Amino acid sequence: MAPACRFSDNRHDGLVPATHRTDMFSACGVITITTDFGHQGPFVATIKGSLLARLPQARIIDVTHEVPVYWPAEAGFWLARAYMYFPVGSVHVAVVDPGVGTKRDIIAVGVDGHAFVAPDNGLLAPVVLRSSAAEIYRLDWEATAARLKLPTPSATFHGRDIFAPIAAELAAGRVALNELGPRITEIVPSWVEEPSVAPDQVSGVVITIDHFGNLITNIDGDLLRGFRQPVVRTGGHSFELRRTYGDVQPGTLLALVNSFGVVEIARAEQSAAEALGLGRGAPVMIVEQGRAGPAAGR
Amino acid sequence: MAPACRFSDNRHDGLVPATHRTDMFSACGVITITTDFGHQGPFVATIKGSLLARLPQARIIDVTHEVPVYWPAEAGFWLARAYMYFPVGSVHVAVVDPGVGTKRDIIAVGVDGHAFVAPDNGLLAPVVLRSSAAEIYRLDWEATAARLKLPTPSATFHGRDIFAPIAAELAAGRVALNELGPRITEIVPSWVEEPSVAPDQVSGVVITIDHFGNLITNIDGDLLRGFRQPVVRTGGHSFELRRTYGDVQPGTLLALVNSFGVVEIARAEQSAAEALGLGRGAPVMIVEQGRAGPAAGR
Amino acid sequence: MAPACRFSDNRHDGLVPATHRTDMFSACGVITITTDFGHQGPFVATIKGSLLARLPQARIIDVTHEVPVYWPAEAGFWLARAYMYFPVGSVHVAVVDPGVGTKRDIIAVGVDGHAFVAPDNGLLAPVVLRSSAAEIYRLDWEATAARLKLPTPSATFHGRDIFAPIAAELAAGRVALNELGPRITEIVPSWVEEPSVAPDQVSGVVITIDHFGNLITNIDGDLLRGFRQPVVRTGGHSFELRRTYGDVQPGTLLALVNSFGVVEIARAEQSAAEALGLGRGAPVMIVEQGRAGPAAGR
Repeated sequence: MAPACRFSDNRHDGLVPATHRTDMFSACGVITITTDFGHQGPFVATIKGSLLARLPQARIIDVTHEVPVYWPAEAGFWLARAYMYFPVGSVHVAVVDPGVGTKRDIIAVGVDGHAFVAPDNGLLAPVVLRSSAAEIYRLDWEATAARLKLPTPSATFHGRDIFAPIAAELAAGRVALNELGPRITEIVPSWVEEPSVAPDQVSGVVITIDHFGNLITNIDGDLLRGFRQPVVRTGGHSFELRRTYGDVQPGTLLALVNSFGVVEIARAEQSAAEALGLGRGAPVMIVEQGRAGPAAGR
Repeated sequence: MAPACRFSDNRHDGLVPATHRTDMFSACGVITITTDFGHQGPFVATIKGSLLARLPQARIIDVTHEVPVYWPAEAGFWLARAYMYFPVGSVHVAVVDPGVGTKRDIIAVGVDGHAFVAPDNGLLAPVVLRSSAAEIYRLDWEATAARLKLPTPSATFHGRDIFAPIAAELAAGRVALNELGPRITEIVPSWVEEPSVAPDQVSGVVITIDHFGNLITNIDGDLLRGFRQPVVRTGGHSFELRRTYGDVQPGTLLALVNSFGVVEIARAEQSAAEALGLGRGAPVMIVEQGRAGPAAGR
Repeated sequence: MAPACRFSDNRHDGLVPATHRTDMFSACGVITITTDFGHQGPFVATIKGSLLARLPQARIIDVTHEVPVYWPAEAGFWLARAYMYFPVGSVHVAVVDPGVGTKRDIIAVGVDGHAFVAPDNGLLAPVVLRSSAAEIYRLDWEATAARLKLPTPSATFHGRDIFAPIAAELAAGRVALNELGPRITEIVPSWVEEPSVAPDQVSGVVITIDHFGNLITNIDGDLLRGFRQPVVRTGGHSFELRRTYGDVQPGTLLALVNSFGVVEIARAEQSAAEALGLGRGAPVMIVEQGRAGPAAGR
């Protein structure tokens, strides 16, 4: 049986079950999956099969399987901003893993009552940055395989053969994060730098584009607090911040702090990506209204 | 605990549990999701996280996330023809919401033992048309937020912050449709007109195209009852109705009343959309065999 | 209630519940779905609705819905190599069905404690080849419809109207495979031939391409056992076998026996399909190192 769930909105009340684990993670049976596998073939499905084989009552949620291939940075960006919408006690498996089968490490991270399992290739760096209390463990494969009775994995699909069974055991509450291997403090950094912050100027990049063509940056709205009237500059354009898409006429470009707390450039009812010809990696700058500043993206 | 389910095929037997709700909806814990979000990023996933946070045992089904962006008409077309294949007591959340964060209303609808929650932008008009007994409620946000302890929503993602928690509470049986706000009788009409019906002639449109390239119209098969030998005209072509694709040779164009009860133009084992060069909005006409009638689509 | 599950890793221990069925299938409540429906419209969703209507506690896993349209061979190829990653007692529904509504048969197959339901169009041929103990039953529609109280199906969507309810009843343990119709021994063969095996040479084809552009062949790694130093030839190129992608520099082409046990041609961190200009059906040959042999694909 999976342990009873604790949920985000009641985790500080008196009903949270006591835990005897030394870490802060208490499993609730929810497992999310984030990959760059797309939807062809049985790749994601056999991960789920492996999860169900060890935890029949697992509740499995696909985060996305459309991370750009071999690009862990985007998986980490989204996970770091989405995990808190899942119940406390969720296990988040992320497999963007160009180094599968090589000597790259596997890490498990505990942040804020959530557990994460991923290759140590920078993917989880944005998650770790979320909390100074993040706990990081480096998987001891031999010890864990023996303890959890894991069969010999394939060389090319650790998502199914290593990440899934470990996630299932974590989600079942049968193993704790700190039982997976030694605690470490250094991990591979993200492939995309955090925004640089100077007086009156924040510089970041377009980190991803959503299905609507909205350009989503890695600049957290919190970084705008020091500005009296922040202006978003990218691709030779400047935008004041709006509250929502419908605040302007259809077809008009705008910027806003989006529902995941980051600066986004949008075009009402149309695609900003198409209109501006911008994509992942495009530089974006926040400046104070009225100050010239260097034009980003020129 | 979610209440026990009643299902479509036994809803009129003696086993249906009595309900003290004034509306006809008795939740069974199934929630479906229909959006125009695509599969990139954590948008659909965080809706599911929000659902699970309030109803851990929710059984969540994706209807589709490939509604054309900003086009509520297609979401409503499909929901109106698909909801009856889910258990009675299902909650159907539909988020095609270009007006998110503006003053557009949110409505909840009860039809035939099913509940629907969506923006009031025409999306649910085809669902409401399904039954003269449809009950429509306009969300009273302040009262509902207080009652269900909803946190302040973002301005741009009501799917996660408003629709999901309300759907979860409906699916949990903790709130009734008529407790969400005042009952109303007028909603925004669909963006696509219903077919026009004249003696010996029915005129509609291609409302969507499926993955096989089948052209699916908004003309219900019921509208063909008055015809002795109906002929489907579109793009300068005429088709008698067949029973199934395999009734003609591969590559042959045909028309039929499809498995959702509407007229469809298909090409056996190939794409009718490609063959005819037709897309959404193309006019389609049903006429009596042997009568000339105006040629549709010329 | 769905019967308790038996799982792959404990199916030979003493805990397997006794079964009084004459076949080897004991349902565990897991149902997988494989189709060529894509993700548009409510097609897959209404299959799931039909499953839930008969088995509310069904745990449903999408294998893939991106099988090339009208191409059952790929569905069968993957199912035959993926089913064993799901719990024993899973029901696998596969709907790639260009002949829907015609006189084509429907078959149910029991292999290795798993059940499969699909049209008899070659789809399940690779599954049947997996085991000499495979049991095949041809659906007796009239008797089964009466027994399971199935409503009259549409002519064009048997996935929702026939396959789903039968799968749900199998997964619920309310009907056994051998109660669905007569046992048969002949089925329609796969549309793709099995590899041909000669001394020092195995010839197969690229059967599918994954999201990364890896070329996946139908040549099982077992067929390479007789080779001292096997070389993979395709499109005028030759590759020795590697263990994993990261064993070569990014951009380098390689071959390996992949995580589903078949020969695959890949390009480290890039697309082999793009680099080689090869697609489904391209001939692939395994020869002994140092022997010339005919060059495949020229």
